[in-house]
Formats: sequence, C-alpha cells, structure tokens
Amino acid sequence: MLVNPHGQGNLMPLLVSEDTRAEELRRAESFVKVLLSTRELSDLLMLAMGAYTPLEGFMGEEDWRGCCSDMTTADGIFWPIPITLSTSEEISSSIKIGDEVALVNDSLKIFGTLKVEQKYNIDKNYECLHIFRTADAAHPGVAKILEQGEINLSGPVKVFDEDHYPETYKGLYYKPNQTRALFEENGWSTVAAFQTRNPMHRSHEYLAKIAVELCDGLLIHQVLGALKPGDIPADVRVESINSLVKNYFVQGTVVQAGYPIEMRYGGPREALLHAVFRQNFGCSHLVVGRDHAGAGKYYGPFDAHKIFDEIPSGSLETKAIKIDITFYCYKCHGMATGRTCPHGEEDRLNVSGTRLREMLANNEVVPTEFSRPEVLEVLRKYYYNVDN
Amino acid sequence: MLVNPHGQGNLMPLLVSEDTRAEELRRAESFVKVLLSTRELSDLLMLAMGAYTPLEGFMGEEDWRGCCSDMTTADGIFWPIPITLSTSEEISSSIKIGDEVALVNDSLKIFGTLKVEQKYNIDKNYECLHIFRTADAAHPGVAKILEQGEINLSGPVKVFDEDHYPETYKGLYYKPNQTRALFEENGWSTVAAFQTRNPMHRSHEYLAKIAVELCDGLLIHQVLGALKPGDIPADVRVESINSLVKNYFVQGTVVQAGYPIEMRYGGPREALLHAVFRQNFGCSHLVVGRDHAGAGKYYGPFDAHKIFDEIPSGSLETKAIKIDITFYCYKCHGMATGRTCPHGEEDRLNVSGTRLREMLANNEVVPTEFSRPEVLEVLRKYYYNVDN
Repeated sequence: MLVNPHGQGNLMPLLVSEDTRAEELRRAESFVKVLLSTRELSDLLMLAMGAYTPLEGFMGEEDWRGCCSDMTTADGIFWPIPITLSTSEEISSSIKIGDEVALVNDSLKIFGTLKVEQKYNIDKNYECLHIFRTADAAHPGVAKILEQGEINLSGPVKVFDEDHYPETYKGLYYKPNQTRALFEENGWSTVAAFQTRNPMHRSHEYLAKIAVELCDGLLIHQVLGALKPGDIPADVRVESINSLVKNYFVQGTVVQAGYPIEMRYGGPREALLHAVFRQNFGCSHLVVGRDHAGAGKYYGPFDAHKIFDEIPSGSLETKAIKIDITFYCYKCHGMATGRTCPHGEEDRLNVSGTRLREMLANNEVVPTEFSRPEVLEVLRKYYYNVDN
Repeated sequence: MLVNPHGQGNLMPLLVSEDTRAEELRRAESFVKVLLSTRELSDLLMLAMGAYTPLEGFMGEEDWRGCCSDMTTADGIFWPIPITLSTSEEISSSIKIGDEVALVNDSLKIFGTLKVEQKYNIDKNYECLHIFRTADAAHPGVAKILEQGEINLSGPVKVFDEDHYPETYKGLYYKPNQTRALFEENGWSTVAAFQTRNPMHRSHEYLAKIAVELCDGLLIHQVLGALKPGDIPADVRVESINSLVKNYFVQGTVVQAGYPIEMRYGGPREALLHAVFRQNFGCSHLVVGRDHAGAGKYYGPFDAHKIFDEIPSGSLETKAIKIDITFYCYKCHGMATGRTCPHGEEDRLNVSGTRLREMLANNEVVPTEFSRPEVLEVLRKYYYNVDN
C-alpha cells in the first residue's frame, strides 16, 4: 500500500475534465485577466495535476499567515510554504469579491480561472523571514516575492490548460495518479523520490542506489520548470539518465517522471514542500542531499535534514532519506559520502559542471570514477551539436 | 533518545550484585545440579547481562507455547524463540516445585540458580516446526532441541558468574546498560547493529556503511559464543576490525562490542530475536542481510527480511535494515548489492573463506576489491603464526 495523499483524502487535481475545457475557456475570455509570474504558473500546474492536494486554489490570508508562522493552514493541514497569487493594486481594484478572474501568462494565454474570495495585503518581510530565513533581495526566492504585486488574491481555481508540458514531455509528464498507478503495477509499497534537474553522474547514482536499498522502487523525478542558460535540455537529461538506468540499475527498480515546479531555493522549507507533494505522487521517501534546494550560503548544509526532525510527528507520511555529499574517493577506492569517508578533500574526485563541459567539448577523457561512459556519450553528442 | 528496553520497562540484568555472589554460590553448592547445554549457558549469560529483558528466567509452559505459536509470552510480550532449560526425567524426578537448583556447565561449575516453578513436557516436533520451519535433525538448531532433555524446568534465575567473558573480552564485552551509556556519550539516538562473527571485508564494510548513512552510529556487534574449528579467534577479529574502522570509517561513528550468544541458525525467527535483544542494547536498527542466521537451504534468502513485515506493528521498536548480498562488481566499478547491480555472477568478485586463507597462507595477492590491505595484514600475520 502506497502512502496516502496529503491531507488524508483523495487526490484533488484541479484540471477540469476535457469536455468542459472549451466552454470554461470561452467564459474566461470575458473575465479580468490576472498575470501569473512563472512561479505562480508553475504552482497552478502543480494544483492542476493534483500535486498540491488538498489545496483547492491560491491561499487566503489566514492560510498564508499560518503557513508562514506554523507551517499549517487554517484547516490544520501541514503546509510549509504558502501558495499564493499576487496582483497589482490597479488590477485588484477592478475586481470584486465573488468575481471570477482569468489566469494568464505573459503572452495572455488563459490557463484557468480563480473565484476571488479574498484580496489582502501581506507583509513581504514577514513571509521572507519565515520561509527563506532571510529578506536579502539577492536570494532568488526572496527576489521573486519582492517583485510580486502588492495584493494577494485567493480562492478556488479551475485549470483548463497544462501548457506545453504533456506534449513536450510525453512519457515523462506523469501526474500523481499516474505515478501511483505505475508504482502499483510494479507492486511497490515504498518508493523513494530522487529529485534532479541535471544528468546523473556517479555521485547521483550512488545517492539513488542507497535509496534503492531502502525502498521497493525509485522515482527519478525531474524538475521541468524554466531552464537557465547553460542548462542541459530535458530530453538530453532523460536520454542520459535512461542510459544510466539501463546499464547500471536492476530492471524494475526505477521509474522516471518530470513535474513542472519552479524552484524557490527555500532550503529547509522547500525540502518539506518537496516531501509534501512527493507524498501525493505516492512516494514514501524523499532523498534529501546536502544543502537541498539551497542557494548561496543562506542555509547550513544540514538544515534541510534537521527540519524533518523539528516538525510535529504526523505532519507528513513521506520521510527524508538524509545523505551528505557523495563523491568518488581514491583512498576508499569507491563512492562514499561525507558521513562514511574519513579521508580529505585531496583524496576526493571533484569535477565542476563547467570543467565537465570543457572536457566533453575538447574530447578529453573524463574519469569513469566521475561519470559512466554511457552517460558521457550522450552528453558528448549534445555538446558537440551545441558547440559546433 | 535511544529506543526503550524491550517490554517498555527498565533493563533487567539478572546478574546478582557482586557482594552477594559468594553467599549465593555457597548456598547453591547444596542444590541439585542441572547441567546447562552450551546454548542454555549462553542464554543464561544473555539473561545475566540484561540482553533478554524483560524475561526473568527460563520460560514456563504457557510462555513456551505462546512463543512457538504466536511469538508472544503469557504476559503479552513479543518473543520469537522460547528461552528454555531442559533436564532429564531422572534429574527432574529428584526436584520438587519450589526447589532451587544449581545451574552448572559440563565441568560442574555453578553459574547461577533457578527457583523451579514448573516441570513440563514439550512436543519437540511442535517447537521445531514453528521455530525452525523444519524438524529435520540435520538442521543444527533442530539437532540441539532433539538432543536436549525431556523435561523443561522453568522459573526465575539468579546469575552469579559470567564465565571467562568479561576477562577474555575486556573492552568488548559490553552489557546493554554499557552500550547505551556509550551511545549517549556519543550523542546518538539512532544506532544500527551490525552482527558479525568474522573479520570484515569490503562487502561487510559496504553493508555497514549503508547503515551509517541511516543512523547516528553503528554498533559492530560480535558473536562471542563457542568457536568452530577454523574460525578466527575474537582478538584477531577485533584487531582486523579495528584497523578497518580506523582507516575507513569516520571517527565517532562506530562502537565495537561483543556478546555471548550461541547461534541457533533459526533464520527468520532468529533474526527477530536478534532485533529484540538489540533493542535492549539500545539499537534502533539491525542490519539483516541475505539469509540472516540461516542454515543450509532451510530458508529462502529473504525470509528473514519478510518476517519483519509480518509481525504485528508495535511488536518491536528496533527495525530491520534489509540488504541483499554485497560484493564488488567489475562492471559497476564498485561495491554493489543484489538489488542495485544488474550484472551477472561472472562480473562479481567472489572469494570464499577457504580460498582467502589459502591466498594469505601462500602470500598471494588478495584483490583490494575484496578486502582492505590493512585488514589483510592482520589476517596474514595470524595465519602465518597458525600455519607455521
């Protein structure tokens, strides 16, 4: 038996049924348009697929405050980061409580609607200090909050468009009910989620294999949100991960999937959010590495580990598998972690992303202790095409 | 906070205080003598140190039957293997209920006393089929039951001699209250027990390091019961394990200790017993490998894993860390397990104990993928002295 969806009820995808989408879209065209930031759009898509069960939409003031201060909604649901929608004072003043508004991206494409229950001001500083433990505008998550509109709109949402994701990531864009079905087909009860937005080298493989020891199966779960320049596109990541799984994992122990979140880099609080929605995907465990979802020096390397011990028991069914940094150690003659290797930095193999790209582009030999030849082959082909 | 002693109360070592031992021994000299088998003596020593908390002595008929059929004593305590004392009909007939008897080894040395509450016949076949899943006399645990006397004696025991153990294994023979104190000094809450009766090669190190990832600390817990011919003596094992820990584990993550049990080779039921008394030693986890405590082909390779999921929840605080066989795989270029390595037998390094001894005795090179040079050095020295 898989873990329950969060909140003890059924999964609640907010994507409306296919036969009503055209009609909903037609209705929405006459509504006031509220522009979604990329973060808000990614949250809307998470709501659509059921990943944010049991939320019914964007949060009202009481939920916002409770999530900031106590990680709990007004209904007593554990929730570590508020999921909110903001707009400008100008737009807000054109909306009345009870109105429906259309939720659009910056090309004015309509993704869904919100029935407005509240319009409220927030103390951005309060949110940032609670969620990010800093109000420093240089923090990428804080920056997004500071940039957002002054008024939050709350209420239930209906979604009728999932953007390009289902098409672009066919065979990867699995919703919680789909990953659960896949896990059940495999006969799994316990599943560890391994989150990645990069190809997997040996250090990632090692982390993932510790998880395979502990659970019936592993979900390699790719972040499919917007890319930064220099990031490797998802199809190349998938191909490289496929080659790793095919050659180095036992058949029937791994499922790959992707999901549309945008990272907030909220460190410990975000690690908890990652666990909350992994529970909806059916995962009993989440691999939490060193400085999980961290940014710069804002969090201690193990803050995202510790917070799992600080929340009230019963908050979450999904548990953390806490692992320190992983690497190849020449004295251990093998993969190791900060917890198991007593040797020094000088004995450990360290290849930065930049250096790897350089090595691949120049056809240099990359140590097999760093990455599997089959994985490097996929990346070499990609960089060859990009750089030539 | 460490796990609670089994049965929710305090540790109950049955070793009487030092100042009363001489007097107890003097009294016991006039009692009827009951000969302990090596298994019964090892159980008496486990009772003495508190490892069998909350048992107060050897089990009566109702406890015996409940442990066989439902792994539960008459008081509702989870206990997977009956802890009993047997004697001959002849000796039994010279004992009345309420008598005290002296418990002696085959040199007639007195270890303690039993106040006889019950004398009862058991159905040996019934016990063997429930505990060992077989009544085949070729099974070493079954053989011991078949050899034992026809009458079981039950009642509370007092122990006043711990045999040679505290002396022979100074700095290793830690009782449950001592391991708990060591764990607390280290600031540990979760501790994984790794049971061994052999030196640790890389496959054992790998198992142990998976446990180190999951727990605050690791207890390398040696079986100190009687040796079979060809076994490596405990001091050599300890020295080789020390050299492994010193060179390949992070300081402050490992404690070594030993305990006086005699293996029953009861597979799944014995794995549960190992977990029960590890809880008393303060261990939250027990590493359970492939065919843990198995013998011949009596148990499936994962029976000892499965049984942890079959017992009622709440039976035990100590959980199993279930790991398949571990080995070096030349295609993985690293340590792996049956669950994480997709390659074939032909890619895996396998060195039998016999072959290792041969290699060491002949000064052949042992692959470092099999064992650490520092460990091999200790063993080489030992075999050199034994074989020359």
